[in-house]
Amino acid sequence: MKGQKKASRKDSKTNGYLTPKFSLSKMATLLSVFSVRNLLVLSLALNVSLILRVMLLHDSQNGSFNGFFFEEQNGPQEEAHASKRRRLSSSVSSSSSSSSSLTMAQGDEDRVINLDHGDPTMYESYWQKMGDETTILIPGWQFMSYFSDATNLCWFLEPEFAKQIVRLHKVVGNAVTENRYIVVGTGSTQLFQAALYALSPTTEADPISVVSAAPYYSSYPVITDCLKSRLYEWAGDARSFSKNGPYIEIVTSPNNPDGYARHSVVNSRDGTLIHDLAYYWPQYTPISSPANYDLMLFTVSKSTGHAGMRIGWALVKDEDVARKMTKYIELNTIGVSKDSQLRAAVVLKVISNSCERPNEVDSFFEFSYHHMAKRWKQLRQAVHQSGLFSVPDFPPQLCKFLNRVFEPQPAFAWLKCEGEIEDCESFLRSKRILTRGGKHFGVSPKYVRISMLDRDKNYDTFIERMSMIRA
Amino acid sequence: MKGQKKASRKDSKTNGYLTPKFSLSKMATLLSVFSVRNLLVLSLALNVSLILRVMLLHDSQNGSFNGFFFEEQNGPQEEAHASKRRRLSSSVSSSSSSSSSLTMAQGDEDRVINLDHGDPTMYESYWQKMGDETTILIPGWQFMSYFSDATNLCWFLEPEFAKQIVRLHKVVGNAVTENRYIVVGTGSTQLFQAALYALSPTTEADPISVVSAAPYYSSYPVITDCLKSRLYEWAGDARSFSKNGPYIEIVTSPNNPDGYARHSVVNSRDGTLIHDLAYYWPQYTPISSPANYDLMLFTVSKSTGHAGMRIGWALVKDEDVARKMTKYIELNTIGVSKDSQLRAAVVLKVISNSCERPNEVDSFFEFSYHHMAKRWKQLRQAVHQSGLFSVPDFPPQLCKFLNRVFEPQPAFAWLKCEGEIEDCESFLRSKRILTRGGKHFGVSPKYVRISMLDRDKNYDTFIERMSMIRA
Repeated sequence: MKGQKKASRKDSKTNGYLTPKFSLSKMATLLSVFSVRNLLVLSLALNVSLILRVMLLHDSQNGSFNGFFFEEQNGPQEEAHASKRRRLSSSVSSSSSSSSSLTMAQGDEDRVINLDHGDPTMYESYWQKMGDETTILIPGWQFMSYFSDATNLCWFLEPEFAKQIVRLHKVVGNAVTENRYIVVGTGSTQLFQAALYALSPTTEADPISVVSAAPYYSSYPVITDCLKSRLYEWAGDARSFSKNGPYIEIVTSPNNPDGYARHSVVNSRDGTLIHDLAYYWPQYTPISSPANYDLMLFTVSKSTGHAGMRIGWALVKDEDVARKMTKYIELNTIGVSKDSQLRAAVVLKVISNSCERPNEVDSFFEFSYHHMAKRWKQLRQAVHQSGLFSVPDFPPQLCKFLNRVFEPQPAFAWLKCEGEIEDCESFLRSKRILTRGGKHFGVSPKYVRISMLDRDKNYDTFIERMSMIRA
Repeated sequence: MKGQKKASRKDSKTNGYLTPKFSLSKMATLLSVFSVRNLLVLSLALNVSLILRVMLLHDSQNGSFNGFFFEEQNGPQEEAHASKRRRLSSSVSSSSSSSSSLTMAQGDEDRVINLDHGDPTMYESYWQKMGDETTILIPGWQFMSYFSDATNLCWFLEPEFAKQIVRLHKVVGNAVTENRYIVVGTGSTQLFQAALYALSPTTEADPISVVSAAPYYSSYPVITDCLKSRLYEWAGDARSFSKNGPYIEIVTSPNNPDGYARHSVVNSRDGTLIHDLAYYWPQYTPISSPANYDLMLFTVSKSTGHAGMRIGWALVKDEDVARKMTKYIELNTIGVSKDSQLRAAVVLKVISNSCERPNEVDSFFEFSYHHMAKRWKQLRQAVHQSGLFSVPDFPPQLCKFLNRVFEPQPAFAWLKCEGEIEDCESFLRSKRILTRGGKHFGVSPKYVRISMLDRDKNYDTFIERMSMIRA
């Protein structure tokens, strides 16, 4: 091959981050001797080890590689990056970032703990332990076209990703996939907008009302109204909605922010439902039966922890709705990153494998279930000690997937400041804990939403601080 | 490391596409003997060869791997996939898909050639020739967070991608990057909407008018009006725009569909400009000077050919506008795929390298310039022979990057049916050539837009058919 000859003319030094140079042709004679699959195993093993070492070399030589290195500041946003830097270091040393022992570093007491966003970095430690399992390699000439499968209604959906979605739902038993169209989105946020677009009547003079029972996900009103669409508009708390005519109700179950299982509350024949099931996974809540709704949204961010991929999917019963959702994503972003879909497919596959062979590998959901259980136990203890706060209690239920009875352990803690404190967000900010106040969710500022998915170091510091607050 | 031990317990067989299993620890002893970088080169070389072979095995064994295999149909959309399948085969055999010799396969005369979309698959042959240069490897535990750089205004922009954007513009000399904010988007389509959001006044009662001189990109009106926003609305051809008050004018230069260099036409002090510079690259038009506008949009789809990545970027002078664009993307998709940004960074880096070391590697822009020049020569010849059509003529100009005087050779041919034919799109459809008719671009149906960026096989068939049409 011409390209191979070209490559062999060049020097054999890597020229930096993830862009190796080498000659394929020189390898050709080796291939006939060994099993192809075994060789692949060997060579990929070399890769990961070596790339980690090259990255480490790079770091120590340049000091500014890939933006991980910059002057550490004390601001809340900087914390994410300081942690990222620590994480990278730990991935090439023998220390594990998933250690849960509480060793407060010097100056740690001044550090701002940002639990406002639901950044699911808790999961990094699992994927680090899995090592190379989910490493993905994409050749530069592959997946260049806009199209993934032109025969599919959702023409930008990678077939391998679709396959792994169906498989994972079957393994976990949390959603019916039969007779459903799959629409992939740039996160479930884009799919929510695609659903609004698809479900809004085009013939009505007034925008259709979009409602959800309070406390509702703080982004719903902002996203719905950001472009002041004449197709749809935010109409607030579903419980106080009394307008006649068509409406869209978002049912988030388990609910963000409070973690409760939910059903629609308006119950009029004119309503269309969007079920946001981002948190209907066994680490958060018992899986009682496969969800079986007309329009269900899922996302890798909260199921596997890969928020940076920006990948979500919708399971849609009605062909016309699926077609319109696809149209919205075509207009909005001309499809969805192929690279992230391919990576998501690998991650979902590894999770399904881990569930089906629990004796060979740590099951992803066992790991994350136990992680969440431990965190909720710590939080309930700290809340009890303080005498100042409360968190919701949930009835225990049988999880048919884990075959275990347990209480929901949501991705967010919905904390209430009891007693005199009216503004819980401000109160916790004074303790250098950033949370999101109740008013963003349509309820009292006595409540805050706290992410339970941060890295151990941050979560442990958060628990330590909470434990020291007294009434 | 704990995870390494875990991995070594498992069998060493690969379990499918891009998800190898192996033990890192067994490799450890090897590492001290060889140069780390040399080993990396060796192991990555093995990878690519082996993965291709495993994929091939997979294909021949299963017949349904990864969606490349399905019953070939005669519809236009299916063609993309049939080509993809051919392409994959060619990447593991010695035949090159970039061959430009015209060998019409049996039944080829009935094949529908879809040149409606601007799918830039022409570039695949360059990236195939470059082989492993742009292969990217992403470990499963990396880039999981929503955040790329929390210290940056555009907090979801990968620093390495930002660095390569600045470098490439400096190498090519097609845009000023100094004192600009970079905002990354899910393609420039999302950035266009982010710009509308950022530039629309929130205090006005009426939506701001959005205009562009006809013929304008067919997606602008559809995207602008798809949600019936009260912030902005499509107001048609900029040349006939006479309303007082604020407006937004989109200046696409070189223009999609007709390829001409453009400047704003309304010229009122109340206007704000969006410069869509997707095609301001030396394969399409002479680079006369670095573009120096307030808001400039670029995309990898049309510069490097990686449409499937869905990655674009904006260079923005005003901090407040950049901040609002970032906010829109946060609301719309909570950032942009990290995986695709990392892959785009590698591709841009390889292009810059290819420009700076023209003696060592084929310069990307030399390759693509010559490819476009050849195609335009073929098209002009066919158009001349037919006596039925015309295409625009462009004045030659000096390209300071290629140091060569040439006529623009746009990514689309803006073809006019001369004489009696009123509906050029229908006429060409009867020849099994799909194009996009003039009415979508705000002008007469005597015009069509034809993609010049399809694979050689399709382009050659297109030219052959055009050559056979006679007045």
